[in-house]
Amino acid sequence: MAKRAIVTLLTDFGSRAAYPAAMKGVLLSRCPKAQIVDITHDVPAHDVVAGAFLLDQAARCFPPGTVHVVVVDPGVGTDRRILVGRFAGQTYVFPDNGVITLVAARGPAQELVVVRNRELLPRGAPSQTFHGRDIFAPVAAHVLNGVSLRRFGPQPDTFRLLELPVYEETPDEIAGQVVYVDSFGNLVTNIPERAVRAKWMDLEAVRGWCAGKSVGSLQGAYGFVPEGEAMVLFNSMSRVEVAVNQGRACDELNAGFGTVVRLTCHRAPPETHESLP
Amino acid sequence: MAKRAIVTLLTDFGSRAAYPAAMKGVLLSRCPKAQIVDITHDVPAHDVVAGAFLLDQAARCFPPGTVHVVVVDPGVGTDRRILVGRFAGQTYVFPDNGVITLVAARGPAQELVVVRNRELLPRGAPSQTFHGRDIFAPVAAHVLNGVSLRRFGPQPDTFRLLELPVYEETPDEIAGQVVYVDSFGNLVTNIPERAVRAKWMDLEAVRGWCAGKSVGSLQGAYGFVPEGEAMVLFNSMSRVEVAVNQGRACDELNAGFGTVVRLTCHRAPPETHESLP
Amino acid sequence: MAKRAIVTLLTDFGSRAAYPAAMKGVLLSRCPKAQIVDITHDVPAHDVVAGAFLLDQAARCFPPGTVHVVVVDPGVGTDRRILVGRFAGQTYVFPDNGVITLVAARGPAQELVVVRNRELLPRGAPSQTFHGRDIFAPVAAHVLNGVSLRRFGPQPDTFRLLELPVYEETPDEIAGQVVYVDSFGNLVTNIPERAVRAKWMDLEAVRGWCAGKSVGSLQGAYGFVPEGEAMVLFNSMSRVEVAVNQGRACDELNAGFGTVVRLTCHRAPPETHESLP
Repeated sequence: MAKRAIVTLLTDFGSRAAYPAAMKGVLLSRCPKAQIVDITHDVPAHDVVAGAFLLDQAARCFPPGTVHVVVVDPGVGTDRRILVGRFAGQTYVFPDNGVITLVAARGPAQELVVVRNRELLPRGAPSQTFHGRDIFAPVAAHVLNGVSLRRFGPQPDTFRLLELPVYEETPDEIAGQVVYVDSFGNLVTNIPERAVRAKWMDLEAVRGWCAGKSVGSLQGAYGFVPEGEAMVLFNSMSRVEVAVNQGRACDELNAGFGTVVRLTCHRAPPETHESLP
Repeated sequence: MAKRAIVTLLTDFGSRAAYPAAMKGVLLSRCPKAQIVDITHDVPAHDVVAGAFLLDQAARCFPPGTVHVVVVDPGVGTDRRILVGRFAGQTYVFPDNGVITLVAARGPAQELVVVRNRELLPRGAPSQTFHGRDIFAPVAAHVLNGVSLRRFGPQPDTFRLLELPVYEETPDEIAGQVVYVDSFGNLVTNIPERAVRAKWMDLEAVRGWCAGKSVGSLQGAYGFVPEGEAMVLFNSMSRVEVAVNQGRACDELNAGFGTVVRLTCHRAPPETHESLP
Repeated sequence: MAKRAIVTLLTDFGSRAAYPAAMKGVLLSRCPKAQIVDITHDVPAHDVVAGAFLLDQAARCFPPGTVHVVVVDPGVGTDRRILVGRFAGQTYVFPDNGVITLVAARGPAQELVVVRNRELLPRGAPSQTFHGRDIFAPVAAHVLNGVSLRRFGPQPDTFRLLELPVYEETPDEIAGQVVYVDSFGNLVTNIPERAVRAKWMDLEAVRGWCAGKSVGSLQGAYGFVPEGEAMVLFNSMSRVEVAVNQGRACDELNAGFGTVVRLTCHRAPPETHESLP
């Protein structure tokens, strides 16, 4: 009872719903020592890709032993499976719909089971519309209370991963896509910082293009360009990001999931580069 | 100090306001052991009916001894009363405007008092615009600290209940109304699951109608119909609900509070039923 | 470890972002006893003035020893400084952009330092886009763990304060401005309650004018005028506020930051006052 037991919640229930609180009530009823932290409940409804990004981004910062409960689950009540897995010393309770993709990309599952054992669930049939309350939260409480994962059910042969677009390199450029739009309207791409650093030494000469339009040179921080101006930078997840200083890049560049972002490297401004000898 | 003291907050202050945090500061100042859980602060402003639904939905999942503080209170500063009541082993601090209706519908008050005793409130006159901070939170802290309810004031003769629309049964149908639209746009009705189960054995033959339009047959889960298609189902509160798979039923069916939802039972599809011998 | 360590978070990250959760993960990793309370994460993006109001409003209600972490920080990654200050027995970690203005207006800093000491920060360079995670949260964890402020860096010569509009008095009136619009659409002004009480004995004769339009006489509470009607009152922060009973004053009076609000005092209704002898 004395040790803390951190459990995070990530759902698309919306912050105006009582569904997250219902899950918290179940968690606290079954594990009084639970220390509950919201990641967010405002994942766009049914958006598993956004859920995957938010989960990975937050989970990295939590201590070992944290239990993450993820309910971005458009398939609730169908035969989609609920999994419990251990990745990098943290435990995840999640629907088998690919929401674990970015966490799993960081390293292999240390343990992984399908939730099957009805004896560990509340008595009576679970609702078919709110497994967050009736299955995910009770399972998470058991994990917090020390129940070993193998008691929940068998190991699955495979589990679902999202097929996310991948960036490509040519001799002259790196071309990727926007894979996530954050709450400031910043355009997060699938291009990792390390790919840029490996390709070009002279980072000050790197230039960005979003949907074919120039977004200027690589900047160190949002505030290094005038207000309202676009830029490209390495974000806090070590990814290439397109942003507008104190503006919403998604609106001002009319860009979103899938928009192509290209990086090139020119000492001279790109307009005049073509005509150099 | 060692025992946990769970206190939930349900308000219409909005998640972008500092008012909920002000209440939390008061609670933690007066009851350091308080374990605060937000139900939501995004009840539509002044919407006592929505507050009543959200409160009931969340409260059911919390352990005995939980204190619920409800500040959906358009009458703040007028002569509306503030009540403290014990229902089903939990304590509620709430304005006497009917927000307790659905909790009270589950069973009688085990104890109920009007907050009158000024000695238990902070020194100085309370503000007339923020009783959440100046009265509700201090009262809740006292309850968490073990002050007995009768010290707050006398027992009221009556308390206010909302007059919610009721469903009706005829030999051929059950007719109810939408009483709550959830964060996914699902249309929650006042028809309890048990009324449907009691009336018809053959649940697969039950069909739903929302604002006169067919919403298909009774489904076991959202994912059992194609994306974008409407359905009727029993929700996690054991009520009849009209939903659209991965869509917003309120928008797509142009429905909201008060919209009539009817259930009928036909073996054959309803279109051809009329013409059967 | 036994003593509680309350830390609040106030940011403009948006409640649908994972950035606040990332900060919480860092806090709990470095200070397991931290008791985290959100003020709000929905400060309008980059709005330092709104942040200043929300911070002051919430902080007043927290107990001594509370640590407040404020990340409304459009200058992240530029040379703007990060400060740690002690005001009225509470500690604030904040960017030097004026967000501390209203807290500082209540009394002088008891201690104030610039964050400089890299040894107290996580190893490796901090990101240039997310100092909340990489600097503010680790610094706050140190404060919660008892590190003395002077270890973070030197005392600054000055720090930035916002130049907020000030109210003015003439023999016949008090004229101020709207400085904050709350989540209900109420118009909070820069006119303190005490200025009104000092100027006029007969508060029932005080009348308000918003953008030149009458908003009636001074009321004791929202519910004292009919639904949809405007009023002027003293709010819970002891400021003059213009509100509409169960409506949004900002929309109905087409008013916002900077709108002029005037108070006058007339025994007779203002329409006929001019023509009195």
